[in-house]
Amino acid sequence: MSQPIEVDACIVGGGVSGLKAFHTLLHHSQSKFNAENLVLVEAQNRLGGRIHTDHKSSKLGLSYDLGAAWFHDSLTNVVLKESIEDKSFNVSKDGYYDDKDIKVYASDSEKPLEINQAKLHRVAEDIEKFIELYFFEELDKEDIALCEIVEIFKAKYDDRLTEDQKRYCGLMLRYLELWYGITWDKISSKFAIMAHQGRNLYNKKGYDFVINKLLSKIPSDRVLLDHAVTFIDRNNKGHGKRVLVECANGQQIFCNYLVVTVPQSILALSPDSSHGITWTPPLPKNVCEALSKIHFGALGKVIFEFDAIWWSESEDRFEILADQVPNNSSLSAPLKGPPEKFTFPTFAINYSAMHGSSKASLALLTQSPLTEYVESHPEKAWSYFKPMLSKLAIDNKHVSDPINTITSNWTNNPYIRGSYTAVHTGDDPLDLITQLSGEHGCGLSEKNIRFAGEHTTIDGSGCVHGAYMSGEREALWVLKDTGAISG
Amino acid sequence: MSQPIEVDACIVGGGVSGLKAFHTLLHHSQSKFNAENLVLVEAQNRLGGRIHTDHKSSKLGLSYDLGAAWFHDSLTNVVLKESIEDKSFNVSKDGYYDDKDIKVYASDSEKPLEINQAKLHRVAEDIEKFIELYFFEELDKEDIALCEIVEIFKAKYDDRLTEDQKRYCGLMLRYLELWYGITWDKISSKFAIMAHQGRNLYNKKGYDFVINKLLSKIPSDRVLLDHAVTFIDRNNKGHGKRVLVECANGQQIFCNYLVVTVPQSILALSPDSSHGITWTPPLPKNVCEALSKIHFGALGKVIFEFDAIWWSESEDRFEILADQVPNNSSLSAPLKGPPEKFTFPTFAINYSAMHGSSKASLALLTQSPLTEYVESHPEKAWSYFKPMLSKLAIDNKHVSDPINTITSNWTNNPYIRGSYTAVHTGDDPLDLITQLSGEHGCGLSEKNIRFAGEHTTIDGSGCVHGAYMSGEREALWVLKDTGAISG
Repeated sequence: MSQPIEVDACIVGGGVSGLKAFHTLLHHSQSKFNAENLVLVEAQNRLGGRIHTDHKSSKLGLSYDLGAAWFHDSLTNVVLKESIEDKSFNVSKDGYYDDKDIKVYASDSEKPLEINQAKLHRVAEDIEKFIELYFFEELDKEDIALCEIVEIFKAKYDDRLTEDQKRYCGLMLRYLELWYGITWDKISSKFAIMAHQGRNLYNKKGYDFVINKLLSKIPSDRVLLDHAVTFIDRNNKGHGKRVLVECANGQQIFCNYLVVTVPQSILALSPDSSHGITWTPPLPKNVCEALSKIHFGALGKVIFEFDAIWWSESEDRFEILADQVPNNSSLSAPLKGPPEKFTFPTFAINYSAMHGSSKASLALLTQSPLTEYVESHPEKAWSYFKPMLSKLAIDNKHVSDPINTITSNWTNNPYIRGSYTAVHTGDDPLDLITQLSGEHGCGLSEKNIRFAGEHTTIDGSGCVHGAYMSGEREALWVLKDTGAISG
Repeated sequence: MSQPIEVDACIVGGGVSGLKAFHTLLHHSQSKFNAENLVLVEAQNRLGGRIHTDHKSSKLGLSYDLGAAWFHDSLTNVVLKESIEDKSFNVSKDGYYDDKDIKVYASDSEKPLEINQAKLHRVAEDIEKFIELYFFEELDKEDIALCEIVEIFKAKYDDRLTEDQKRYCGLMLRYLELWYGITWDKISSKFAIMAHQGRNLYNKKGYDFVINKLLSKIPSDRVLLDHAVTFIDRNNKGHGKRVLVECANGQQIFCNYLVVTVPQSILALSPDSSHGITWTPPLPKNVCEALSKIHFGALGKVIFEFDAIWWSESEDRFEILADQVPNNSSLSAPLKGPPEKFTFPTFAINYSAMHGSSKASLALLTQSPLTEYVESHPEKAWSYFKPMLSKLAIDNKHVSDPINTITSNWTNNPYIRGSYTAVHTGDDPLDLITQLSGEHGCGLSEKNIRFAGEHTTIDGSGCVHGAYMSGEREALWVLKDTGAISG
């Protein structure tokens, strides 16, 4: 068994927030930490967490981001800004702004919908404004599911909508399923509509460049892979350190500062489940309650590679609407077999247009419960999506079967268990952030134990830049607490 | 000379706010006023104010709204809601939602711009978001003109924009000139970006239906046309009434309550100017200062009628961008002759598509100083607009000269003098509303003198529904003050 490790600060989790925390602790101009005072433990045998650029699975020689793929809030995104400044990212070469202006297909329409002529986006925007007004009028109004508020809108403004608008615009709101990774019978309408600080910038370079940049400044011997944390003693007495961390392989780490960046889904596990963390004393009631009032989505990806392109090479993305179903609440039920075609809407990213190549590849976004199904049964993915993708065929081209299917595997990964924070109807998305961000004196009574990650921030919640900034935030807190920098 | 009139309440101004105030005072279920207790005086020989549906000028048998033409904030618009409920307005028959999704032309492009492919709207939205963030970061930040902040955006994000986006997206922001009726060298960027509560609904029916509906419930002998108010004694002692109003024709009106709904432009006139109102005692300093910190725009309309349609019949509106000019600040200088083509951007409303007819009519929006010029020289309008409108010609059709030109005449109307409130760079748009809306105990010390109109409200500022609600607001205040309804 390894010798115990004694350090000033230990970081749990090697995603972007943990790596940024480590990087800041080591490289801040006023930091007094050396690399040997720090250690990062990662449960998996790879780093990057929910940034995962797959360079190996393609049969066309391509790379795919199976996790994060966009710079969101591009006007204020710090990771983007820094990457442009240090020249590791060139927007015109490495990026693609793909917002809106997209072809939309539906099962009952031979051709793409006449989005502009029918003003479908404008009505969808009205629904979003209606949702805002609905809750603005009365702040304590009871939350309802997205699918329900859409029905209220449609009933209230029935005489102002065309037949096409009535048919499609509610279903268009299901695009939010591909933000949150859950179906609209679960999505909280109260918290569904986000304000974005600028367009979304698709990252063609592969998001691992951000991870690699951080790793290039972190000594590899201070990063321990395959070290899944199982136990944390918040009030350790031995070895002159305030915290004891134990890993599944028996490794003990004694430290004074602990930055916990495991996903929300891991924090929410009961200590006796196989990948949960046992805290001594247990996590306080306020944190546990906050964890019970928020959920975790399952945004996934399915990538089909083909011999040749049978769709338009020049359209960057395609949106395929779902059909109306008799009972929306059935949508979120776990799938025992492949769903009916057009049950779940999807976005298809057209590699040829986004990357300016002639490679025949379509990357589709999936939501829970479809994500769980296709991640466990990748071989069934094409039979579900084929009828939907066939809508994209042009010039009577033959819809060929894929030569390769790649799926993400987040829901089967016991250290990730999904994608990121998702607000179900009735959830409180702010309480957990209040408890974990450490900004308001809440959370644990031991202030030397900190939390970072996409689930601990409002600004960039669920995003790479949010996770990144949260890691920096906690590192700066530690540096202040040690007196290295002023508060 | 007429006998003095003695009433409980006098309303000055027969636009929508004054008429709604009268209507509410007379018809509120708990009102004790009879028609003979009330009088409304109007300076002009017509009612409606800046609602003016012209049924006479067309050579094609059409009617045109020379003033207000849209229901804005259609999700919350009270006038629209009431008109749908009382069946005086049928959205599918009488309305047309014309937001966005519009063809855009520029002088250097043979065909309409590839708005979607070039993602021009998306970048224009980013500029608006940038403006919001620019002032949000620092609330006391000095205001700058819209044309200036666009340059800051372009410089800051130069490496993220395509050549087409750099060329056109700043100029696209000049669409705001056709909201405010002033050029972008004057437009306050701090207050330029509005939140809309739903789409804009173009009113095909003619906005005078709202006026006529109110008039049908107001005895015509209680409405005095050609009665321009010249003098108001705030502290009258005679006739047992608290206020004396005198008109240019010598008519005296003694009243206890006065609701002043004259345009902001009239309030801002000095008492010794020919159409100003002399107040005794003069308007207090706080009101005069507030009036000096806000401006009045000049949105105008030019309507061309033709023998035949040589543009697309099916596009509802066309946007024609202006050219870049070397010196933006020259844009607002009064015009001594017709401007260079493509100096000012315009929107053209295509009657055939909006009304579903085959009538050859284009209605263009103009901003100051072009409005003043074309309203004084309607015969010069075509020579300015012809090169711009020629861009719309399709299928090699001949661009014929109009058979009829109709312009609004707001800037030459001494009782109107423009369109509505416009916020210049450095203005304070809220102070006047605070002073005049009476909600905060500011304004005049005589609380029985009230103000209504589009310039007295945040909610629906500059709009028909804002004016309408402000008239109702003041009538309800009077009813409360008389004890007819509870406070």
